[in-house]
Amino acid sequence: MQFEITKENIELIQDLIANNKTEEVTSIMNDLHAADIAEVMEDLSTDEAKFIYLLLDGEKASDVLIEIPDNDRKRFLKILPSDFIASKFIEHMDSDDAADVVAELDEEVQKEVLNEIGDIDQAGDIVDLLEYEEDSAGGIMAKELIAVNENLTIAACLKEISSQAEDVDEIYYIYVIDDTEKLKGILSLKKLILNHTNTKISKIYNADVKMVNTDARQEEVAEIMDKYDLVSIPVVDDIGRLKGRITFDDVIDFVREEAERDYQMVSGITGDVEPGDKVWEVLRARFPWLLIGLLGGILGAVVLSSNEESLKTVTELAFFIPLIAAMGGNVGVQSSSIVVQSIASGVKDLETTSRKIIKEVSVALLTASIFAVLIFSYNFFTQGNMNLTYSVSLSLFIVILFASLFGTLIPMVLNRFKIDPALATGPFITTMNDILGLLIYLMIGKLFFGLL
Amino acid sequence: MQFEITKENIELIQDLIANNKTEEVTSIMNDLHAADIAEVMEDLSTDEAKFIYLLLDGEKASDVLIEIPDNDRKRFLKILPSDFIASKFIEHMDSDDAADVVAELDEEVQKEVLNEIGDIDQAGDIVDLLEYEEDSAGGIMAKELIAVNENLTIAACLKEISSQAEDVDEIYYIYVIDDTEKLKGILSLKKLILNHTNTKISKIYNADVKMVNTDARQEEVAEIMDKYDLVSIPVVDDIGRLKGRITFDDVIDFVREEAERDYQMVSGITGDVEPGDKVWEVLRARFPWLLIGLLGGILGAVVLSSNEESLKTVTELAFFIPLIAAMGGNVGVQSSSIVVQSIASGVKDLETTSRKIIKEVSVALLTASIFAVLIFSYNFFTQGNMNLTYSVSLSLFIVILFASLFGTLIPMVLNRFKIDPALATGPFITTMNDILGLLIYLMIGKLFFGLL
Repeated sequence: MQFEITKENIELIQDLIANNKTEEVTSIMNDLHAADIAEVMEDLSTDEAKFIYLLLDGEKASDVLIEIPDNDRKRFLKILPSDFIASKFIEHMDSDDAADVVAELDEEVQKEVLNEIGDIDQAGDIVDLLEYEEDSAGGIMAKELIAVNENLTIAACLKEISSQAEDVDEIYYIYVIDDTEKLKGILSLKKLILNHTNTKISKIYNADVKMVNTDARQEEVAEIMDKYDLVSIPVVDDIGRLKGRITFDDVIDFVREEAERDYQMVSGITGDVEPGDKVWEVLRARFPWLLIGLLGGILGAVVLSSNEESLKTVTELAFFIPLIAAMGGNVGVQSSSIVVQSIASGVKDLETTSRKIIKEVSVALLTASIFAVLIFSYNFFTQGNMNLTYSVSLSLFIVILFASLFGTLIPMVLNRFKIDPALATGPFITTMNDILGLLIYLMIGKLFFGLL
Repeated sequence: MQFEITKENIELIQDLIANNKTEEVTSIMNDLHAADIAEVMEDLSTDEAKFIYLLLDGEKASDVLIEIPDNDRKRFLKILPSDFIASKFIEHMDSDDAADVVAELDEEVQKEVLNEIGDIDQAGDIVDLLEYEEDSAGGIMAKELIAVNENLTIAACLKEISSQAEDVDEIYYIYVIDDTEKLKGILSLKKLILNHTNTKISKIYNADVKMVNTDARQEEVAEIMDKYDLVSIPVVDDIGRLKGRITFDDVIDFVREEAERDYQMVSGITGDVEPGDKVWEVLRARFPWLLIGLLGGILGAVVLSSNEESLKTVTELAFFIPLIAAMGGNVGVQSSSIVVQSIASGVKDLETTSRKIIKEVSVALLTASIFAVLIFSYNFFTQGNMNLTYSVSLSLFIVILFASLFGTLIPMVLNRFKIDPALATGPFITTMNDILGLLIYLMIGKLFFGLL
């Protein structure tokens, strides 16, 4: 019977901890995957979590350390001595995880930990990995891989694999290199098994291999691996020497995180909000965009109050303020998120900028016309006032046009200046279009009612 | 030198096609991955794409068929005879892809195609797969896998693999079964290579294997594979017999598609909008939510016009209509998207419903208080009118409170009734909160100005 993470089972563990039942807790933890232990620990108090953590052996403890949320890990590592971090955690980790953890430490502690690592090769690997930009292929790759020389036979290769395999958890491919360590191709384990043992590697490896440079951006790596369904991809330096490999699980995490970030941005949330977050953490994530919304609203009030006389004379104008604002906001969010998503999906877009703009303008013109006609018809049949009918329809037409164009252009401009285009979605574009819509509407209204 | 998909190269291909240079085009296509050919074809006219397609051999043609967008594929298959579909495409495909393609055909054509398939085992596999729900583990799994009996030795196992391996593109794990085909565990190729050839499989396989039932929902499968970083997962029936396997690339696609769908929903876009889409396709995707926005705006106009007298008397009330509407909308979208994301991420949430509601209410109360105080201070110092100051602050307080609660509760209720909670994000919640905010604001305003 497998242990499941339910409320009852969490309470059971809490009971066991309260009664200091070390053996029972250890036995439960031994049956659990590191990802599950991390999940259990999130539902416990700090002291309870510490109790569990101290029972884990080195291998498991370092696996769990990778799984717990970044902030918890940082807080936790702060209270531990450098030699403990090195011997209990780092030495049990793959180089990519080890480098990530070391990178999170203060610079002073980093040096201490690196010097405490017993295996000089491992320390060297970590130092090498820390040289790369955090979000480049070099920064996310692992050094653990199986590489064999192209001149070996399968038999010799199998021996080589035995000696290298101890460090590598999962072998997806064997990388074939030449005497200068340049990557020549890959060899699947399937081919290795299915061929005769005295066949030369050079005869059977696949030279048509996708690879990325250590400088490649994480987005680019994810795009390539997703497009070609690669379980792992080799990373090479500028002269083609094999430096490391990136595996599919990094891509899944990256795709998920990017998507969450963009989603939160368009929803007006900054930073990562998770179910377990404290009240003030949720508050902090929601505050900035609401403040911008408030300032936009105040600006709107200023615009309207400077037109107080007109509004007093033609109160009907006020009726359609929410409609104009809402439509401008909605159209703007739609346009901007279409642009953001096409940028994020990394689709190599062969439409020229001019063709793209023509298309956007067509969509905007059509949308504006359709909704202008709809609101014109509504007002024509329900409002006695033709001036109001003209004002609202014409304003809506212009507002939709402007909202589409701004929604499309602003993220494109931000992206050109290497600023995250997702910033221009959600509350930002809504607030901007609210104000703009008000200005256009009031001006046109005053024009039709002869108040200018 | 690798062929890159640039505007120049697309034009080069178009030239070659125009001049009927079959050999040159074939040679370029032979060097390209199926995913790249599909990308090239999207940038060509239908006739040009057809020209290329007819040059591809069966293996490549069926790989490309899988890569092109669903709608294009459906249109394309409609014009082909059943025996051609069977022999040119289906017979070269893995069972999961084959079942997907067959499922897209009209029922009549399905039967014809299935009967045209030469390999009866393959036809049987496809029929089996079509039995499962489309978004269940059974519906996405492939039948191609390597399974060996636990009683074999490594040597016998290697022979068995040789005979089975022809059908399987990639071997990530070998599945170990007993005499009744029940899944006992997995064996990595690494272990197979590193152990002696007369070792029994039963001695070295790993029995601690994550598996899913054929009925498991796709979300659940993705969650498990992501959590435990699995490259593939075996699928079993109710009595534990091995039925198929699901690989990581399905999970990446699923995670990406789910995220895109939620993102488009919160942005007010229905359906999938892609860079290459035609003007009317973009229009159709944007129309529904804009129409709802328009109806909401009209409803707002009705609410305001029924308060025409009050607005004439106290025109200042109109100034803060955009502010109230914007804040209600923003808060609502934030709340709903936090709920939607926590549902989508599939985090097993151990907070009880009562604790969750207490937390939401705390966040809502704090947010409402902070922004009520901010707008009170602003109005206190800039507006002479204390009635207006009171009205706006109190309304804002209540509107934020309501917007938070609706934003939180509506997606939760939808989810309970098995309706996609993402429906309650974006324009829906914005429009609803706009109207609600207006009603609250006007009532409180009339109260303070003694107009009730």
